[in-house]
Amino acid sequence: MAYELYYWDGLQGRGEFIRLALEDAGADYLDVARTGVGSQKMMEYLKGKHGYAELPFAPPFLKDGDILVSHVANILSYLGPKLKLSPEDVKSATFLNGLQLTITDFVAEVHDTHHPISTADYYEDQRQEAKARSAAFLKHRVPKFLGYFDKLIAANPAGKGHIWGEAVTYVDLSLFQIREGLKYAFPRAMANFDADYPNVAKLGESIRKRPRIASYLRSDRRLDFNENGIFRHYPELDQDPV
Amino acid sequence: MAYELYYWDGLQGRGEFIRLALEDAGADYLDVARTGVGSQKMMEYLKGKHGYAELPFAPPFLKDGDILVSHVANILSYLGPKLKLSPEDVKSATFLNGLQLTITDFVAEVHDTHHPISTADYYEDQRQEAKARSAAFLKHRVPKFLGYFDKLIAANPAGKGHIWGEAVTYVDLSLFQIREGLKYAFPRAMANFDADYPNVAKLGESIRKRPRIASYLRSDRRLDFNENGIFRHYPELDQDPV
Repeated sequence: MAYELYYWDGLQGRGEFIRLALEDAGADYLDVARTGVGSQKMMEYLKGKHGYAELPFAPPFLKDGDILVSHVANILSYLGPKLKLSPEDVKSATFLNGLQLTITDFVAEVHDTHHPISTADYYEDQRQEAKARSAAFLKHRVPKFLGYFDKLIAANPAGKGHIWGEAVTYVDLSLFQIREGLKYAFPRAMANFDADYPNVAKLGESIRKRPRIASYLRSDRRLDFNENGIFRHYPELDQDPV
Repeated sequence: MAYELYYWDGLQGRGEFIRLALEDAGADYLDVARTGVGSQKMMEYLKGKHGYAELPFAPPFLKDGDILVSHVANILSYLGPKLKLSPEDVKSATFLNGLQLTITDFVAEVHDTHHPISTADYYEDQRQEAKARSAAFLKHRVPKFLGYFDKLIAANPAGKGHIWGEAVTYVDLSLFQIREGLKYAFPRAMANFDADYPNVAKLGESIRKRPRIASYLRSDRRLDFNENGIFRHYPELDQDPV
C-alpha cells in the first residue's frame, strides 16, 4: 500500500524533507494535499475526525496503513530502515535521529528569521524584528549549525562524503535541502557557502546528481521555493557575508 | 552500568524532562555536570574529544555504555521502553514520540518568549520584542498546544487520565513539567490554567503524587526554576489571563 504524506499544498516547507526521502527511495507514495480533495482530507485529521490515535498536532504527518506518524524527524526515523536510508542498529538510528533533530531545531530558527514575534501576524508587521533576528541568525547560528555538520562529514571514518557510514541516509538528503534553502533565502549572505562549508557543499552536489533526485527536481512534484515556505527570500533580510 | 546524563549545571532546562523520567523509574543515573569535574567532562564531548560518533550538537545527551543519544525526544524515545515508560509497539512508540516532539516545539517557543531576537544577546537587550512575543505566545500558542494535549487526555479510550494507554508514559511526565514551568513563568496569565485545561491539571497533580517523583521534588536534585532556564519569570512579560 502506498504511503500517504499529508502536508500543506503549495509549498515545500517541512514536508520537503519527507518528499526527498520518498523520492530518493523510489517509494510508492501519495502527496495527499496535492490531489483532488486532499487538503480537505488532511483537515479532517487535524480536526480529530479520525479519532484519538490519529490526531496529529500539525502537518507533516504520514499514514502507513493504520499507523500515523507525525513530525519530520519521527517520520524519517520510521521510514529510514524501510527505505534503506538508514541502518537498523540502535547506535546508528539514535545518532541519525539526533542529527535530524538538530536539523529540526535549525529549521525552526530559519522560520523565525521572518516570524520572530508571532506566526499569527504577517511578516510585514514584524519586519524590523525580522531584520534583527536574521542578522543574529546569519552571524551566530548558521556558522554554529553548518560548522557542526561540515565537521562531522569530514570526520566520518567511512570517508565517502556522507554524514554517517558509507551510504546516503535521510540526514544527507535533509542537508541538501538546507543548503538549497539557505542559498535561496539569503543569496548574498550565502555567497561563500561552498568555501565555508565545503563538505556540506560537496554532499549537496552529490545528492543533486542521484538519478531519482535529479528526476524529482525536474518534475512538477518539486515546487519552487516561495514566500509561503520555511525558506523565504526577503531581500531586506539578506546581507553581505559575515 | 548507570546512565550518564549530560546537561548544564545550575538549571532545570531541557535536562529536566530526562531527569523526571529517570527519577520516576528509579533508574541508576549520574547527573554528570553536577559532579566534581563533570562540566569539564561534558565540554570534552562538545569539543569533539571523544570523536566522530560521540559529538553531540548540544546538551542534553545521554550515555548508555557505548551509545550516545542526543536531544530530549530522542533520549526519551530510547529510554521509554527500558524504563517501562512507554510501550514497545511501533504504533505507540511513534505516536508518543510525535507527542514529545510537539512538546519540544512548545518548549522552543517558551524559550523564545524571553529571547525572540538572539540567544547571543542578553534578555535585557531584547525586552521590548520579548513583550510582544510573550503576548502572542500567551494569546495564540498556549491555547493551541495545551488545548491539544487536554483534548487528547480526555479522548484517551483507556480513560485513566494519561495521554496514551493505561499507564504513565514519559510524555505524561513532560506535561507535568510544562504545567509547572508555565505557572512559574507566567503566574498571572496562568491563573485559570486548571479551569482551562482540567485534564492536564489533573494529570499534573497525579504525577506530583507518585512516590518517586514526590521524593525527587523534595530532594536537592530538583533545582528551583530560575532565570537561566527555559521557563523564566520576568514580571513584565506576564499579563492578565487572555
